[in-house]
Amino acid sequence: MIPTLEDVRAAAARIQGIAVRTPLLRNDTLDARTGARVFVKAECLQRGGAFKMRGAANAIAALALEVRAKGVIAFSSGNHAIAVSTAASHFGIQATIVMPSDAPRIKLEMTRVNGAEVVTYDRVNESREAIGARLSAERGAALIKPFDDAFVIAGQGTTGLEVSEEITPDIVFVPASGGGLAAGVALALPQARIVVVEPDGHDDIARSLAAGVLQRNAQGIRSICDGLLTEQMGDLPFAIAQRRFECAVAVSDDAARRAMAFAFRHLKIVLEPSGAASLAALLEGAIDVQGLTVVIIASGGNVDAETFALALAAQ
Amino acid sequence: MIPTLEDVRAAAARIQGIAVRTPLLRNDTLDARTGARVFVKAECLQRGGAFKMRGAANAIAALALEVRAKGVIAFSSGNHAIAVSTAASHFGIQATIVMPSDAPRIKLEMTRVNGAEVVTYDRVNESREAIGARLSAERGAALIKPFDDAFVIAGQGTTGLEVSEEITPDIVFVPASGGGLAAGVALALPQARIVVVEPDGHDDIARSLAAGVLQRNAQGIRSICDGLLTEQMGDLPFAIAQRRFECAVAVSDDAARRAMAFAFRHLKIVLEPSGAASLAALLEGAIDVQGLTVVIIASGGNVDAETFALALAAQ
Repeated sequence: MIPTLEDVRAAAARIQGIAVRTPLLRNDTLDARTGARVFVKAECLQRGGAFKMRGAANAIAALALEVRAKGVIAFSSGNHAIAVSTAASHFGIQATIVMPSDAPRIKLEMTRVNGAEVVTYDRVNESREAIGARLSAERGAALIKPFDDAFVIAGQGTTGLEVSEEITPDIVFVPASGGGLAAGVALALPQARIVVVEPDGHDDIARSLAAGVLQRNAQGIRSICDGLLTEQMGDLPFAIAQRRFECAVAVSDDAARRAMAFAFRHLKIVLEPSGAASLAALLEGAIDVQGLTVVIIASGGNVDAETFALALAAQ
Repeated sequence: MIPTLEDVRAAAARIQGIAVRTPLLRNDTLDARTGARVFVKAECLQRGGAFKMRGAANAIAALALEVRAKGVIAFSSGNHAIAVSTAASHFGIQATIVMPSDAPRIKLEMTRVNGAEVVTYDRVNESREAIGARLSAERGAALIKPFDDAFVIAGQGTTGLEVSEEITPDIVFVPASGGGLAAGVALALPQARIVVVEPDGHDDIARSLAAGVLQRNAQGIRSICDGLLTEQMGDLPFAIAQRRFECAVAVSDDAARRAMAFAFRHLKIVLEPSGAASLAALLEGAIDVQGLTVVIIASGGNVDAETFALALAAQ
């Protein structure tokens, strides 16, 4: 079932006290440079350092009590892992998390710190979906999908719902890969133009929108945006995307680094490469925003110190 | 005249639309590590990157129109400079700023970008107060003092007023040097214990509180906390300090760096060394906070990329 704005509202009630309301940041330099009124929704300040807490909390909270008691399982490149493990710990249940062995160290550590069992796999040669499904069957634990789930999409949509309670944006820039966040935000802001941002060379969403049919990325494509490397978008997000996404724009690794440095220098927030992708698209002038009220979803901030320092040094 | 809570309330009304309300951030790791309920007041997310915007905006807004029209002058190691130049630009008046030649580059640049004229001086051999007073006399511009002014103290106090509108803290950690912020916060939170934090070896406030008379720092003491190197506290802040400050604790450069790295890793905010001093005092266990509701005033985030990267690398 495709979720609706009502589901997003229900999610907001369900996740209260687990996820937090994040601020909308303003910056004079950003406004001057773009000619727009820009609001940065700082999801790096979300519990667990990324928006993923919203969807995970909603999905787990919506489980029947006897199902929830058996624990949950998730596969994730990082931020969904942290979110599911944190939400599971909130509900006092066991979490098993399947993560690629090359995930950023900080994401592996933040997942383990919440008491989750972490199972690593080889991103190139193994399928996380298959491993997740097998473990789920063996343990009887509910699989909390990272994006192709109505409760997860509705949970991520609360990001947009909070925006709508403060301002009425003309246009929203959202990073997308599985598409759960972008789809949820589109539901929450039915009047806004939705521009999604993906890494250069990993442009399945742009191609899917053009083809009208889900396209897949070639395996093994690398990008500094480690949170945006899903093989293909989910079916549910795509159904929403076809009705609501205006377009998908691509950003380079260097543009992501420049945006991280801009956020450091002017906004004083820490963004991981994927979390800076939407800001990168704005700063690179991907879309004319002159005179508009713009929202940038800065989706997360879980980045290793080395990667961050390199991004600052590159400027 | 020593300002009061009423002056802080008046300041809040005056600076609306110039300064912004900053969020109170929570973090699971911080709570677990300290055994307290910790709220971080993220003044690095303030306009201009530091709390100083509050006091500068209040002082300039309170000037009579004919006085204000002649422009303003300020002397500052950095964040007060940025704040006065930004507030002056908001009111459409000229600002002249006297800054030490060794101020962090980012602070010099952020001051110039607002159209202010920057006059540099040698921190060791020249007196910024004397230069400021001379320029003020020559130009007829009003001097906006950095801390020893009732309007500035009341403006900085709005930081605490915002805290009081959300929670009732038992104890507040505030960085202090001139003492304007700490004094203002003390006014705004009359029931809270106030612990101020200063750099190691620059402990004039601890000595002043012990002596009951203002003490002075030796010239030329160095610290990574470039915003906390005032020669001595102001008379007005000291009058409030004697009634309200519980104690002053000192933090080392390394402790400040560790706190910057903690804020990067867990809070996802950028703190300059001075802005991290209060968090450093908490993390070093300077005061027993077990079971308490604690507020950390994280006062600013204007730090050069090199200094920031070194702080992260030191961990």
